[in-house]
Amino acid sequence: MQNLRVNGDRLWQSLMEMAQFGLTEKGGCARLAATELDGKARDLFVDWCKACGCTVSVDKMGNIFARREGKNNSLPAVATGSHLDTQPTGGKFDGVFGVLAGVEVLRTLHDNNIVTETPMEFTVWTNEEGSRFQPAMQGSGVYVGRFDLETELNKTDVDGIRLKDELEKIGYLGKEEPGSRNIGAFFETHIEQGPILEDQGKTIGIVRLGQGIRWYNVTIKGRESHSGTTPMYLRNDAMVASAKIITEVEEIAHRYENGLGTVGFMQVFPNSRNVIPGEITFSVDLRNPNADTLAEMDSVFTKYCESVAKEREIQIDIDPFWYFAPVEFNASDDVKSAAEKLGYSNMDIYAGAGHDACYMADLVPTGMIFTPCENGISHNEIENTSPEECEAGANVLLHTMLEASERIAKESVSPAEYDTAG
Amino acid sequence: MQNLRVNGDRLWQSLMEMAQFGLTEKGGCARLAATELDGKARDLFVDWCKACGCTVSVDKMGNIFARREGKNNSLPAVATGSHLDTQPTGGKFDGVFGVLAGVEVLRTLHDNNIVTETPMEFTVWTNEEGSRFQPAMQGSGVYVGRFDLETELNKTDVDGIRLKDELEKIGYLGKEEPGSRNIGAFFETHIEQGPILEDQGKTIGIVRLGQGIRWYNVTIKGRESHSGTTPMYLRNDAMVASAKIITEVEEIAHRYENGLGTVGFMQVFPNSRNVIPGEITFSVDLRNPNADTLAEMDSVFTKYCESVAKEREIQIDIDPFWYFAPVEFNASDDVKSAAEKLGYSNMDIYAGAGHDACYMADLVPTGMIFTPCENGISHNEIENTSPEECEAGANVLLHTMLEASERIAKESVSPAEYDTAG
Repeated sequence: MQNLRVNGDRLWQSLMEMAQFGLTEKGGCARLAATELDGKARDLFVDWCKACGCTVSVDKMGNIFARREGKNNSLPAVATGSHLDTQPTGGKFDGVFGVLAGVEVLRTLHDNNIVTETPMEFTVWTNEEGSRFQPAMQGSGVYVGRFDLETELNKTDVDGIRLKDELEKIGYLGKEEPGSRNIGAFFETHIEQGPILEDQGKTIGIVRLGQGIRWYNVTIKGRESHSGTTPMYLRNDAMVASAKIITEVEEIAHRYENGLGTVGFMQVFPNSRNVIPGEITFSVDLRNPNADTLAEMDSVFTKYCESVAKEREIQIDIDPFWYFAPVEFNASDDVKSAAEKLGYSNMDIYAGAGHDACYMADLVPTGMIFTPCENGISHNEIENTSPEECEAGANVLLHTMLEASERIAKESVSPAEYDTAG
Repeated sequence: MQNLRVNGDRLWQSLMEMAQFGLTEKGGCARLAATELDGKARDLFVDWCKACGCTVSVDKMGNIFARREGKNNSLPAVATGSHLDTQPTGGKFDGVFGVLAGVEVLRTLHDNNIVTETPMEFTVWTNEEGSRFQPAMQGSGVYVGRFDLETELNKTDVDGIRLKDELEKIGYLGKEEPGSRNIGAFFETHIEQGPILEDQGKTIGIVRLGQGIRWYNVTIKGRESHSGTTPMYLRNDAMVASAKIITEVEEIAHRYENGLGTVGFMQVFPNSRNVIPGEITFSVDLRNPNADTLAEMDSVFTKYCESVAKEREIQIDIDPFWYFAPVEFNASDDVKSAAEKLGYSNMDIYAGAGHDACYMADLVPTGMIFTPCENGISHNEIENTSPEECEAGANVLLHTMLEASERIAKESVSPAEYDTAG
């Protein structure tokens, strides 16, 4: 078992095959959650898992679980997975690599006729990106009970189309109750989506922590009026008020160690060049690995918005609709041990982005395996990594899962019994 | 003739009837250029003019000319008109009042069986707003030769639909060559779209000058990347660079006397809350009644963009696609004389917005008549004025046109002949 390795070529080919669903001209991927393309990607995953003898279940939130039985099937399963949906101009690896590293582990176990101590589960979580439907990590969030199932199923995209209807349309509105699976540990492999592993020349990142995230919708209501006849002193310009806040978001991020601040989305009304904008909605994304620092960033941001509203006599509504507290990954030692055993250079790191594993950490011991990505670029069509880096990540996942499976089996029997069995 | 007056009630009713095409819930008007609604509004105008015995021509740019014959039909006509298209969330009066004040003058002449010295023409210019197709004042701009006919007809809206096809669809792609009509003077009645007449308690504004306008498209190309994993120091954030420039546009406007600066339109790519925007396009609108000052504003603005590009290592392209030089209205004295004769309080004023009259001033003596609008608000669904104010404007238009018609007739004969004729 110590010498067991995944097939790196096969993993890479699967990644390229999956990328065909939504492949963009620039070589990226546009496969928004619960679209027809997402449906096709899910079908391919299910086919691959069934070909290795898995039974497949889908829950009411569209999350998929492919189960491979082990020696003792009443024991909690060791699970892995990530997501198949992408950003509108996303890459081929974000999420997909985590799902297909799981498939490669599955195939390796299957090809070598290995019977693991516990069952193994290979999962796909619905709408991790939060691009088409908000919030992000929606499927895993419902699974662990952070979000209400019905509320999330009734969320609509910008065209008013409901997630529930879209899941039904692509055949992934399942019947299983979310949260009901017997899982004992969860692992997620993911490209780092940042520049640190590459900078440090490390193959594997042991993710110890997921940083805290605060998401806001800011709506500014000014007064729309003619750009050529409204004197400057009579304006209530929603655009300039927005610009002031956007500049401050950047400054807040610079002001705090490890702080990040981004405005990625903006909608302008009426959006005509000779009309002073009357209403603007934009997103704000603040992050920090330290919960107290993030709370301070939140407070400074909110106060700044209030001061702009007052100074400019303009209405500013802030909806702080999502807070994700920093999370610790308690099964990181399993990952560390596997990486060391395999002889891969590695380092401890924290996750800058939200991941499904961050929610799974609510329920079970969880770990994340990061692999480098070119220039740290992600959420971009040119997102890239190498077959070797993917192979290394999948090998670490394989041995982490085997290790966790043995640990769970060991923990399930009394020490005396185990010694006898051994 | 001195006692001739328009019918204010009929004018107001016509304004309300025309507003039905595109009436919004808030009582404004959404009737974009060359849409089906614009076609219906044009049909109504044509019907009204034909009912008063006019012959109607349409040119290749979709501009409409309703002609009422006079005593000497070889003399240049006195023309009036404005536009029927509105902003996406426009009001009921901007442009429409200028067209319907013309219709009311026509009806008054018709009802009283008045035969004017010269022919009179009542016009509708295509796409004055510049909302759906750019630039603004497109129809009159083609008519006077500022823009090339074919280039403008091939312009497309955001959905890629061509102006030429839309004009054909609504039945207003005419055969007449733009610029070929025999016009001797042009007058346009318009709500002020600003707060000055109301502030000063004046009924009529004699427009002496149209302010200069510079329009730009600014495109910022940064690098899109993940909002949670890209350290601040590695970002090329198109949104923050845009925000810096938008703030500066406001500051430039404040820095120069009578300066105006507006960013009304913005498109963000990929426009997703957890992606640092990679590309943003926005409009910039700078105005000043003084050409030299406007040139200085242009220079300061351009240099600021260059400094942001350099500082942030980001690509900023500025397309200064439209410059409208300040324009003098040479037939303002006709307007002044009519306003005085009618006993309306009046003041000299300059036009903050672009108007079709600004282009017609290239070809013939031109004048503009401004009337107050409530709180100076325009390009807004709550844009408002009163029946009395509209009536006053139409009365001034009537007597201005009569005066100009007489002047043209007088100028066409030698002083000796005229004396004999008189």
